[in-house]
Amino acid sequence: MVSQQRHLGLQRPEEQGSTQSAKETQNGSLSQIERMTQARNGASFDPSKLAVIIYGSKEELKTTLAAFARVENTLGHTDTFKLPVAYGDQTRQATLLEGLRCGKATFQDGEPDTNVFSERTHLFSLGNSNPLGLTNFLFTPYLKLVGTEEQVKYWLPLAEEGKIIGSYTQTELGHGTFVAGIETTATFDKETDEFVVNTPRESATKYWPGAIGFTATHTILLARMIIDGQDHGIHPFMMQLKNLKDFKSLEGIELGDIGMKMSYNAAGNGYAVFKSVRIPRSNLLMKHASVSRDGKYTSIPLRQKLLYGGMMNGRRVMIGHVAFQLAQALTIATRYSIVRTQGLKLAKPPNFAETTIINYAHQQHRLLTLIAKSYVAIFAWTSINITYSALPALQAAGNHTTLAYTHMLLCGLKAWATQTAADGAEEARKMCGGHGYMLISGLPEIVNSVLATRNLTFEGENYVRWGQVSHYLMKGLDAETLPADLVYLETYYADMTSSCKSVGIDFRDSHVLLDVFRRRAAKCIVEAHDLVCAAEKGNGLSREQAQNKHAPSLIVGARAHIEVYILEASIKQLASLPVDTDMSIKAVLTRLVSLFGLSTISSPFSPFAASFLSDGYLSAAQILEMRDQIEQLIQELLPDILAICALGCKDGDVYRRIMGWTRQLPINVPAKNNGGVFKAGWEQYIAPFLRENRERRFGSRL
Amino acid sequence: MVSQQRHLGLQRPEEQGSTQSAKETQNGSLSQIERMTQARNGASFDPSKLAVIIYGSKEELKTTLAAFARVENTLGHTDTFKLPVAYGDQTRQATLLEGLRCGKATFQDGEPDTNVFSERTHLFSLGNSNPLGLTNFLFTPYLKLVGTEEQVKYWLPLAEEGKIIGSYTQTELGHGTFVAGIETTATFDKETDEFVVNTPRESATKYWPGAIGFTATHTILLARMIIDGQDHGIHPFMMQLKNLKDFKSLEGIELGDIGMKMSYNAAGNGYAVFKSVRIPRSNLLMKHASVSRDGKYTSIPLRQKLLYGGMMNGRRVMIGHVAFQLAQALTIATRYSIVRTQGLKLAKPPNFAETTIINYAHQQHRLLTLIAKSYVAIFAWTSINITYSALPALQAAGNHTTLAYTHMLLCGLKAWATQTAADGAEEARKMCGGHGYMLISGLPEIVNSVLATRNLTFEGENYVRWGQVSHYLMKGLDAETLPADLVYLETYYADMTSSCKSVGIDFRDSHVLLDVFRRRAAKCIVEAHDLVCAAEKGNGLSREQAQNKHAPSLIVGARAHIEVYILEASIKQLASLPVDTDMSIKAVLTRLVSLFGLSTISSPFSPFAASFLSDGYLSAAQILEMRDQIEQLIQELLPDILAICALGCKDGDVYRRIMGWTRQLPINVPAKNNGGVFKAGWEQYIAPFLRENRERRFGSRL
Ligand SMILES: Cc1cc2nc3c(=O)[nH]c(=O)nc-3n(C[C@H](O)[C@H](O)[C@H](O)COP(=O)(O)OP(=O)(O)OC[C@H]3O[C@@H](n4cnc5c(N)ncnc54)[C@H](O)[C@@H]3O)c2cc1C
Ligand SMILES: Cc1cc2nc3c(=O)[nH]c(=O)nc-3n(C[C@H](O)[C@H](O)[C@H](O)COP(=O)(O)OP(=O)(O)OC[C@H]3O[C@@H](n4cnc5c(N)ncnc54)[C@H](O)[C@@H]3O)c2cc1C
Repeated sequence: MVSQQRHLGLQRPEEQGSTQSAKETQNGSLSQIERMTQARNGASFDPSKLAVIIYGSKEELKTTLAAFARVENTLGHTDTFKLPVAYGDQTRQATLLEGLRCGKATFQDGEPDTNVFSERTHLFSLGNSNPLGLTNFLFTPYLKLVGTEEQVKYWLPLAEEGKIIGSYTQTELGHGTFVAGIETTATFDKETDEFVVNTPRESATKYWPGAIGFTATHTILLARMIIDGQDHGIHPFMMQLKNLKDFKSLEGIELGDIGMKMSYNAAGNGYAVFKSVRIPRSNLLMKHASVSRDGKYTSIPLRQKLLYGGMMNGRRVMIGHVAFQLAQALTIATRYSIVRTQGLKLAKPPNFAETTIINYAHQQHRLLTLIAKSYVAIFAWTSINITYSALPALQAAGNHTTLAYTHMLLCGLKAWATQTAADGAEEARKMCGGHGYMLISGLPEIVNSVLATRNLTFEGENYVRWGQVSHYLMKGLDAETLPADLVYLETYYADMTSSCKSVGIDFRDSHVLLDVFRRRAAKCIVEAHDLVCAAEKGNGLSREQAQNKHAPSLIVGARAHIEVYILEASIKQLASLPVDTDMSIKAVLTRLVSLFGLSTISSPFSPFAASFLSDGYLSAAQILEMRDQIEQLIQELLPDILAICALGCKDGDVYRRIMGWTRQLPINVPAKNNGGVFKAGWEQYIAPFLRENRERRFGSRL
Repeated sequence: MVSQQRHLGLQRPEEQGSTQSAKETQNGSLSQIERMTQARNGASFDPSKLAVIIYGSKEELKTTLAAFARVENTLGHTDTFKLPVAYGDQTRQATLLEGLRCGKATFQDGEPDTNVFSERTHLFSLGNSNPLGLTNFLFTPYLKLVGTEEQVKYWLPLAEEGKIIGSYTQTELGHGTFVAGIETTATFDKETDEFVVNTPRESATKYWPGAIGFTATHTILLARMIIDGQDHGIHPFMMQLKNLKDFKSLEGIELGDIGMKMSYNAAGNGYAVFKSVRIPRSNLLMKHASVSRDGKYTSIPLRQKLLYGGMMNGRRVMIGHVAFQLAQALTIATRYSIVRTQGLKLAKPPNFAETTIINYAHQQHRLLTLIAKSYVAIFAWTSINITYSALPALQAAGNHTTLAYTHMLLCGLKAWATQTAADGAEEARKMCGGHGYMLISGLPEIVNSVLATRNLTFEGENYVRWGQVSHYLMKGLDAETLPADLVYLETYYADMTSSCKSVGIDFRDSHVLLDVFRRRAAKCIVEAHDLVCAAEKGNGLSREQAQNKHAPSLIVGARAHIEVYILEASIKQLASLPVDTDMSIKAVLTRLVSLFGLSTISSPFSPFAASFLSDGYLSAAQILEMRDQIEQLIQELLPDILAICALGCKDGDVYRRIMGWTRQLPINVPAKNNGGVFKAGWEQYIAPFLRENRERRFGSRL
């Protein structure tokens, strides 16, 4: 898969300089570049054909690659032997400036509606990790969701053309997940036909919104609307933050930055305090609720339901996005594993050269099971995209029947994908040893930016997402007739004493795997439902309380249901590959889907494997057979591992690039010219330290 | 437990300023400070008594607290409303300078042998995360291990008195885990009685050693010793790096920094290139191997075995250390969970106030099962300390029989504890929502510094540690008679068809749990051994190859054996509590041990729970009963959760401190004085961006 990031070991062949140092190795074993070439030549298919499948079409792939190439060019990111600015000095200021520089390049690339970067940055991370990315990523989608036709017509072009800079202001110091608890008020002043916005106490301070520190000119503000002393709940308002002439904050507005975070540092997440800030009544975004000149409030009945929409799209984007980020991290780890040698344990005659770390079984196991996960995540994403894109037409026609189902799927897939991608990217980082601990490997940044989607970013905790899936499941089981996607529960629950009959190679069959997945989901979901009902009846708890009490069991059930969907979706995608797809590509994708299924059930490291066991459906012997199949699949997939991961040709000249970048670090350059002395350290601390110790203790000996 | 770090929400009561803003809350619900006080008053015992148990004695506790108080005072870290330097601007230079400042304060606190900071920093992280901490943490211990009496007598006082600054130089760009592959050479020059040190190619560049960039004056260098063209393998040399007068690097030595990492940034991890650097023969550290004036090499037979020792102590230190760091992260998450409110779902009459997040079942579940793990980690550490401290006397008397056992335990416990602490601290971070994603929460730094111990830091991957445990287990099973610690395998293996008879509350009994743990270890270890033997016989693989092939199964077996040890150790520690221990403290500790055992087996989130299932020893009904017990234990432990975590009194005035620190960020101060404008951003990017867009596209509308 494409990885446009300038990480270690990733660069185009034409950029190679002299490779002398890399070739000069110990004991005449292969150089890193040679190992990379050898691995690449072993593949059974042309990776660019696989890339077309992943991107959906040749067109899409071409457009994307061309846009990345343009932007890398604009940014001067083509010489990969030059230390990237972001890995040098990281003052808060410099980080923000670099974010603005990159954001300008991506925003201005292409036309608004064909912009490859409207949802992502030049590093393939989410658009809101860039201060100028918030406009397209959050501001305009939300505006379209809640603005009247007239409002959209006024604000949208300004934003799309970059004449104003947008942001989205919801979270407060005291409220994140629980949006209904927001404390900022917008009180209607009938006299002047304005809303007066206040953050009435410290916990109401807006805290976190991207770009509001020092970049956004405008924001969509969520605040509690008060009219004549009556609280109408949370509503969205268009608010201008900055004077466009000199960029000073408008009256009554205090804005600032919230400092360094684990990632998203270029985004300039900020805080805002509002003291009686006046905005015209017409700035209430009125598609679903409006206020008349004389303060009469009206809202349409489906207001809450329709607001779902905004969140749903955000989740949809995140699912596909983190699947690609996981692939990006795995690409780096795979390449590194192919060029890195370490140890003689597995050395073989005649030359007993050190082992490439890809030869360690657990490295293979971890890489390939994770690669399988990144593929099924992309399959599931493709599938949910189809369901999701059918929604607007249905809703416009007043049909809201599939809304709950789609909402549940997006919640669950978002939770599953972000958790999987975050854990997987972190595992990829670990597989690179010490080098993965350095920022210049690019891996910490990928991991940390995915982590933000896992539990945070403009929406609550993943546990809350799982809660929404659970809620759907419990409601479904309570209903007279099961919703369509839950009908399989019935089949299984009718006979929970049967056991699985498959053996050996059968376990690769995706329908056999689907059967095991469904049966396990049936067990977990019905078990959780029983527990919740018992808590309601036995302990007299409310539904909410009972669900809270059994949250751990519910999460397992929810996860099981989502994994059924993912496997189903993958099977569907396999079946609908273009007819002219290479046989070897089909074979590889089929193996990856089997590997996902098998390792979820029986890998010793699978986090939820226990839920497949304990009820006797699978025997201990079957688990061992499955592990055997996993091992065989891994061996079959290994020759193609680079082709599965990589798009385009990258050499493997890692060490030379590390040393090149290291010598360019801003702290090393002046020290080098000064006999190796970091002047401030020596003068302020080390010299006095040594002197004092010589004087303070026991006299000098040197 | 003690947490000396100045994180959010942690400060002494006497430091409280006005609490007005914090008290002023929505709907008249409790303020954060009130919630904290209420939770603290609910405890069933005095937390300081528990602290004495954790620290081993009143003396130890007092000494530690006093030292931390002294150093915090020296560093000016007492005003917790002042933004800590480290959270402001993070240039590479400033970070290193701050590290030197803090290192000087800790190094100079107390006398060398009573220094509370010889293994840790003022933030409770490992000593080698500070550039002046390497001396006591790595340099002097290793010197004592490999230096002759005379060499130790010469160098040790210089180092202990701070007249030289030490470091330890092993890792190279090309070699980390596999130390035997090191490429740096030390060639004996008979003419001049010197060794000539070279890093003969790029991959031989020393890369990673702490403090060698710009702080250390001396290092213990690991290099390949060559005499008369013969390679004698890796040996340790004392090498001076810097001229003590002006700190210039000595001739032929290029030193530099390796840039920013996920943590350990103050340590100044560096690189070194050596070009024909000459050091006297007497600088070879000769305790176990020596070279005579005429180049004759002699070494004692146990050289390799004795070198184990150095690594062993490092592992021992890490085990205890990360257990405390985990506790530190959990303390922060617990306090935050007590003061943070979010959501009305569980709201109760009469006032329907928002729920404190500690009331969410999964938050309780995660916090308490992790707290239980941090306690058993400390118990296991206490236990291994006893075994380890008996070793030198035995070895001195020529008795090496317990060496392999102790070595195995330290490998396994190190792998277990660092993995548990890293995952647990990360989970604690997540439990704090967005605030845990900000550096000022202190949590990212704790997580990242523990992560370095998990897979890296002056020793290889945890997988390699598990490999060493596996190796011991396979050897043990091959032997005529089982080693003492494996005898239990026999008991279980004699009858693998039996099933567990316990029910309900029995499952809290630590001996019942031990039985389940042992039985599962027996299953996993014997299963792995069978697989390895079959691969040797069936596939004709070498032992190394067979073990590699079945690494995943071996790791599960190794882990199971270590968890047996941890549970045994915890049971022993409970039994040997001082006789005057409060009944309520005993009860709490007993509950925590049960919770560890039960949740390892049956928590839906337990990563290795599958290994307890699938063979019918435990039934599905028993798993549900265990989960029931977990839930009850959690409810029983909850009132004491603050007392279990906290030492001393800390208020909970979180929001006020966040806003105070945020306003002090270096980027906000000048912007505030400039009408809210971040000048460089506006002038260099935003103004031109808006202007260009106005001009470039479709004419102006504003
Ligand atoms: C990188 C980044 C970018 C962001 N960008 C924006 C932005 O542009 N605009 C904006 O408005 N906001 C933004 N945010 C803020 C984001 O929306 C919040 O962080 C998110 O909503 C989570 O809220 P919180 O951090 O307040 O956590 P909380 O809601 O306080 O949750 C804390 C913890 O409490 C527990 N918990 C809370 N509620 C429940 C529940 N119902 N059930 C069970 N457990 C619960 C969970 O353990 C959770 O982790 C951003 C955040 C990040 C990290
Ligand atoms: C914070 C920090 C401080 C440090 N301080 C020092 C210091 O003071 N002095 C010093 O000399 N060094 C220091 N180091 C370096 C440290 O010793 C190495 O990072 C460590 O030995 C791991 O080696 P590596 O990074 O080269 O990883 P590698 O050995 O290259 O391992 C890379 C990956 O390969 C796989 N692998 C490798 N070998 C095996 C095997 N045998 N079996 C299975 N899989 C395998 C694993 O997935 C592993 O993660 C420090 C490192 C860090 C992060």
